[in-house]
Amino acid sequence: MKLHDLATPALVVDVAALQHNLATMAKALPGARLRPHVKATKCTTLAKRQAALGHRGFCCATIREMEGMAAAGLGEDLLLANEVLDARRLGRLDARVSVAVDSAETVKAAADGGVREVLVDVNVGLPRCGCAPEDAGRIADHARRSGLSVRGVMGYEGHVMALADPAKRVEACDASMAKLQAAHALVGGDVISAGGTGTFDVNRVATEIQAGSYSLMDTYYAKHGLPFRLAFCLWSTVISASAAFAVCDAGLKSLGMDHGNPTIEGAKVWFCSDEHVTFSKDGEAANPLTPSIGDRLRVWPAHIDPTLAYHEKLHLVDGEQVVDVWPIDLRGW
Amino acid sequence: MKLHDLATPALVVDVAALQHNLATMAKALPGARLRPHVKATKCTTLAKRQAALGHRGFCCATIREMEGMAAAGLGEDLLLANEVLDARRLGRLDARVSVAVDSAETVKAAADGGVREVLVDVNVGLPRCGCAPEDAGRIADHARRSGLSVRGVMGYEGHVMALADPAKRVEACDASMAKLQAAHALVGGDVISAGGTGTFDVNRVATEIQAGSYSLMDTYYAKHGLPFRLAFCLWSTVISASAAFAVCDAGLKSLGMDHGNPTIEGAKVWFCSDEHVTFSKDGEAANPLTPSIGDRLRVWPAHIDPTLAYHEKLHLVDGEQVVDVWPIDLRGW
Repeated sequence: MKLHDLATPALVVDVAALQHNLATMAKALPGARLRPHVKATKCTTLAKRQAALGHRGFCCATIREMEGMAAAGLGEDLLLANEVLDARRLGRLDARVSVAVDSAETVKAAADGGVREVLVDVNVGLPRCGCAPEDAGRIADHARRSGLSVRGVMGYEGHVMALADPAKRVEACDASMAKLQAAHALVGGDVISAGGTGTFDVNRVATEIQAGSYSLMDTYYAKHGLPFRLAFCLWSTVISASAAFAVCDAGLKSLGMDHGNPTIEGAKVWFCSDEHVTFSKDGEAANPLTPSIGDRLRVWPAHIDPTLAYHEKLHLVDGEQVVDVWPIDLRGW
Repeated sequence: MKLHDLATPALVVDVAALQHNLATMAKALPGARLRPHVKATKCTTLAKRQAALGHRGFCCATIREMEGMAAAGLGEDLLLANEVLDARRLGRLDARVSVAVDSAETVKAAADGGVREVLVDVNVGLPRCGCAPEDAGRIADHARRSGLSVRGVMGYEGHVMALADPAKRVEACDASMAKLQAAHALVGGDVISAGGTGTFDVNRVATEIQAGSYSLMDTYYAKHGLPFRLAFCLWSTVISASAAFAVCDAGLKSLGMDHGNPTIEGAKVWFCSDEHVTFSKDGEAANPLTPSIGDRLRVWPAHIDPTLAYHEKLHLVDGEQVVDVWPIDLRGW
């Protein structure tokens, strides 16, 4: 099928850009140095490409993602980098399963649910899950007394990803990782799991980096000067046009909006409705867009994760040809 | 099943509040005076409740919604209140199908796709789809010459919904509807379709109101002084807690974020991540929330439409009992 004939809105992935991103990361962080996070892409077919490049351990954010990865034969070393209070579905998986714990309650849930291995999740500066570094040893001891194997620590320096200046990222990442090292000294184990696309090359402490967005990217990370290309967008049709503005069939139900409006090259985006983006020609752009009804155009989402979670499929595109369709098969909980 | 035992995050609907909302609207706008819009709820089971109350014509925003409604036996009078450039899937439906047109291109698509009836969509002040009022007659004539039956006009005064002050809503709605009346004078036909939950009681021109959010509501519409109750929320579990803040398992993939953060009673919401909401106790609230790990709590989304589009099911709740599960079966395109 030709790209032009695809029903819209539809997510399209540029095969060459995806391959570039996967290869670039595999060179920078070979094998187990990268534990790809599947939450951004929620696609086992893409995960299999990462596994084929040597990354055989994966990171998940939901139990559904863990189940889907195990069912797809990607269960060699699955980490649920999130806290759960009912781990029974994890205990039933035919896979090597580790789960994050940061409290007596989450330790109990892991043990009760039949999970065998845990990482102690440490708050390294982002106010989200994770214990205080000084509490990590106590939680590890409690986990071991509960019959669990403690593989090490994890901590997500998510607040560092927001810093577009590389020098500031280095400094803030080092400060976060000092906390994780302190916790690791109390916990022990082989694993220090941390990082993301924004710190993959500046995190000097983690034994494995939990990056996911790098494979397809978004306009937010594209401002960070990373060596990865924007590899996906929302393919859309102009369905209405007047002298002042035009409207395409993308919208709030096909775009994660927490990072703001999407981008359309050569255009000013006015606002998004449920099934529409209203925009106009940007006269100051290098190549101002003059939209006509029926035109297809690329809408570039600001945040990959909540965008892909709305969609059922990724359409792989090589030039003007749709060469494959990959199900986004890890949605839900 | 008890509400407490539901796996989280999960959408829950208060049966009594839903029934109140459906009954209140059916009394205000009986039978065909309301054309319920299914885009907010995307649930044919809920639509059947509306049909049972006498509203037998429905409004959709996507072709998938039209297909799902027809397949569910709700095809007596389906309006796609949106522009499409490929109407072939509509022409194949076993249903009475009307579609909005606002250009020669959309008229051609309707005729080519085998659709028989159209409404001329008019821009009444919201910069989105719809022709200029003075062009409506020309488009209607073109549609009739193309073999289509023109049932009348539609126009969505979406910008009026944003006005929380009822007096301002009346004034702005009247101004919008004057444009729609002018267009209707040029177009003819029995139907003047317009309105939404925010103008259901102040729109004095529309022959039918396209309201959808009223059935379940959200925190945005709840500020409007409407006679409808907040009937749905995201049921969530506190998975991590420290002295300063706590975290529950709702997040960017379970909440539409374009209207801002969700609300947690007695708490201050700090921010949302993909699978987390970070919040703290609001010491100034009437009933400050003191969260503990394992607590269940209600997260109230700011915008219903993009929230429901992330979920597979609505869990109907009567007190502490889950009494039914309704699939959200109209997602996608």
